[in-house]
Amino acid sequence: MDNTLIQPRTLSGFKDRLPQEAYAKASIVEKVSEVFLSYGFMPIETPHLEYADILVKQGSEEIQKELYRFRDHGDRDVALRFDQTVPLARFITQHRHELIMPFKRYVIGNVFRGERAQKGRYREFTQCDFDFIGSDSLSCDAEILQVIYSSLNALGLQEFTIWINHRDILNGIFAYFGLHDNVESGLRIIDKLDKIGLDEVQKELQKELNITAEKAQEICRLVMIKQTSHYSDFFKEIAYLKDYNEILRKGLQDLESMFSILDDLELDISSCRINFSIARGLGYYTGIVYETTLNRLKSIGSVCSGGRYDNLTQSFSKERLSGVGASIGLDRLIAALMELELLELRGTMVRVLLIVTNEAYFAFAHKIAEALRHSNVKAEVYPDAVKIKKSLGYANAKGHEFSIIIGDEEFQTKTLSVKNMTSGIQIEKVSFLHALQVVRNS
Amino acid sequence: MDNTLIQPRTLSGFKDRLPQEAYAKASIVEKVSEVFLSYGFMPIETPHLEYADILVKQGSEEIQKELYRFRDHGDRDVALRFDQTVPLARFITQHRHELIMPFKRYVIGNVFRGERAQKGRYREFTQCDFDFIGSDSLSCDAEILQVIYSSLNALGLQEFTIWINHRDILNGIFAYFGLHDNVESGLRIIDKLDKIGLDEVQKELQKELNITAEKAQEICRLVMIKQTSHYSDFFKEIAYLKDYNEILRKGLQDLESMFSILDDLELDISSCRINFSIARGLGYYTGIVYETTLNRLKSIGSVCSGGRYDNLTQSFSKERLSGVGASIGLDRLIAALMELELLELRGTMVRVLLIVTNEAYFAFAHKIAEALRHSNVKAEVYPDAVKIKKSLGYANAKGHEFSIIIGDEEFQTKTLSVKNMTSGIQIEKVSFLHALQVVRNS
Repeated sequence: MDNTLIQPRTLSGFKDRLPQEAYAKASIVEKVSEVFLSYGFMPIETPHLEYADILVKQGSEEIQKELYRFRDHGDRDVALRFDQTVPLARFITQHRHELIMPFKRYVIGNVFRGERAQKGRYREFTQCDFDFIGSDSLSCDAEILQVIYSSLNALGLQEFTIWINHRDILNGIFAYFGLHDNVESGLRIIDKLDKIGLDEVQKELQKELNITAEKAQEICRLVMIKQTSHYSDFFKEIAYLKDYNEILRKGLQDLESMFSILDDLELDISSCRINFSIARGLGYYTGIVYETTLNRLKSIGSVCSGGRYDNLTQSFSKERLSGVGASIGLDRLIAALMELELLELRGTMVRVLLIVTNEAYFAFAHKIAEALRHSNVKAEVYPDAVKIKKSLGYANAKGHEFSIIIGDEEFQTKTLSVKNMTSGIQIEKVSFLHALQVVRNS
Repeated sequence: MDNTLIQPRTLSGFKDRLPQEAYAKASIVEKVSEVFLSYGFMPIETPHLEYADILVKQGSEEIQKELYRFRDHGDRDVALRFDQTVPLARFITQHRHELIMPFKRYVIGNVFRGERAQKGRYREFTQCDFDFIGSDSLSCDAEILQVIYSSLNALGLQEFTIWINHRDILNGIFAYFGLHDNVESGLRIIDKLDKIGLDEVQKELQKELNITAEKAQEICRLVMIKQTSHYSDFFKEIAYLKDYNEILRKGLQDLESMFSILDDLELDISSCRINFSIARGLGYYTGIVYETTLNRLKSIGSVCSGGRYDNLTQSFSKERLSGVGASIGLDRLIAALMELELLELRGTMVRVLLIVTNEAYFAFAHKIAEALRHSNVKAEVYPDAVKIKKSLGYANAKGHEFSIIIGDEEFQTKTLSVKNMTSGIQIEKVSFLHALQVVRNS
């Protein structure tokens, strides 16, 4: 037998989650799932591996480069999914006749992209998507925003901004300057605003789109419009844009209708703000689009983005299915919640550790632990009869609130000694009911 | 643009989960997680992809053949995990100094094996493992059995049998016949009992181990011993085996000690039964081992198996870390629960569908839906103002208990019409509180 040791290491660009973080993630998943379910979204699951041709057609060139693609045992050309949207499109077309439309689904799972390693970016990460497919109604758009709002609230986040735009506003602005065909290249330049500054963007627009400096300036002015007042005032301020053209009018009209739905709800409408520079997935979205930033942690970027798309299943079917949805980047959100100290990091969910001084007392200890669990107090038994100092050290390290010690005297008299791990106070040889009361009253 | 449609299809040997089944799985995961947490197990996460050398060393030849292994973008030799145990060993060694020992972890995630396609077997499946690492105490063995019992109970399963054995009993039997070195090959033959029958097994043992027919017969007789009486009687019946040799004595002694711990607990001790033919993972387990079958559905095989192992991390570290754990095969369990009709298959978790007859009423409908959710009644708004027949059809198909209709009159008087989808009875134009009461009282 080969006795050489293998160096234990995670694959480059991948990471483990230790218990505290894994539990925090599981509880986030539970909380957002509960929100999704309460709005009528149901979960689905698709495999991590797909035929490569399913994934490749819709992906951008960059995605293709980052795809984990290989030949399987049957020499099939396969790849790990890089997002949850392409598998959704495949799923919907394949199971079209088993699904009830409009179809509301959520999915929480891992996707893989062989990106260049960067701090805080991993090649496997968790996406949490929810989509509303098969209806063009603004009612869906409003609901998706409501779900974003409720999900973040459920995680204890209050101070965030959902930046909202409509692709028709961008299309309309470019059309106004006779640049119908230059929307994508124009937006790609405007996207660099944060990086290269306004002057450079204007110069580049001028050069690339072959327009005057004045036009470039005016385009930038329009695209940089952000809502700063109440939405009803804002729509009055920019009402003049409706006269620019029909496309702009339609985009503004949609936004206004959606805001009036949202305004009636219990969400804080001031956290929804219109921002004409939000573009998102250039080729993909066709209607309302949004990004969500945390007010106290803007630097991490958007934690939840999405929008309306026109034809989800076009690669697979001639039936046109439009929809609207959003995606929460769970890894980024976990990092943010950690930084904002909104994440409960627990070493254990168990409150009481049972400690025995003699192996012969294990049966009794397990019986007590079980009785505690039946009384809704999570409990566990330290598995070895070692020096009490060692077992108490375990309780301290993991964060148990109480230790219950079963020594010789306790075992003989069928009593328990209860130690409060925070105060250090120990109550000697009490009955089970007394011990339970002590734990419950803390 | 290429307009050829791609045929939507899942990869051969892989499957999607539709909403009903995906929700059922999510609720199983939630229930068993709650059990694991209440016993002090915490979740961890490891990547789906690992360096191939991490996975390959411990895997059997068969596993190597089934491994999804390829070169990544950085020409690294990588593979998808085929179980959760090898990644656990890697994880523990790598994070040794960040972990508190003994270490109790659970993990619920997918593993990949390129097996030959068979009915009901998939190449990607979900394993749910829980392990107790870093203690040799029988207290851990007892707790793992208790967790199996509690998990299955939490899923509504009552009638199951946990078949328990000890590797030292098998080792001791073979040692008794002077066959110390033939345990593995002997067990491999005995494993065929169900397939080829007792006669053939005896013949094969005789031939392969080069022993007399009498010896082969006696080995079979011993290995086929199953507990049929109360465990205390059973241990009396087979007490003579303790005199065979020290190994057998030790195995029986461990089982007896563990049963006496279990007997004091609230689990039904009659569901734990000793069965000398249980071997499990020949090279891997070293102590108590078990398999769990459903009494009403034996044919599907073991839904939860595990045991004690001596040296989990031997590929990665010189430190000896023993442990005990079990693995629930979630896919098999879901199939079983479906067959036993113990699985709640729901089209939606939402009880009330809000229906509007005019787009202008959406804001009002969303407000009502929100008020219902705040009163702990899950509700959703049908997103299109279409013919009522169509929206009611959606409610029927998805299984909403009530539809609340907002037509012209309802909107003008700010009232609601509530239709019970089961009885068909409709209450016209009532207040929100009245509607809430109707829904709550049903």
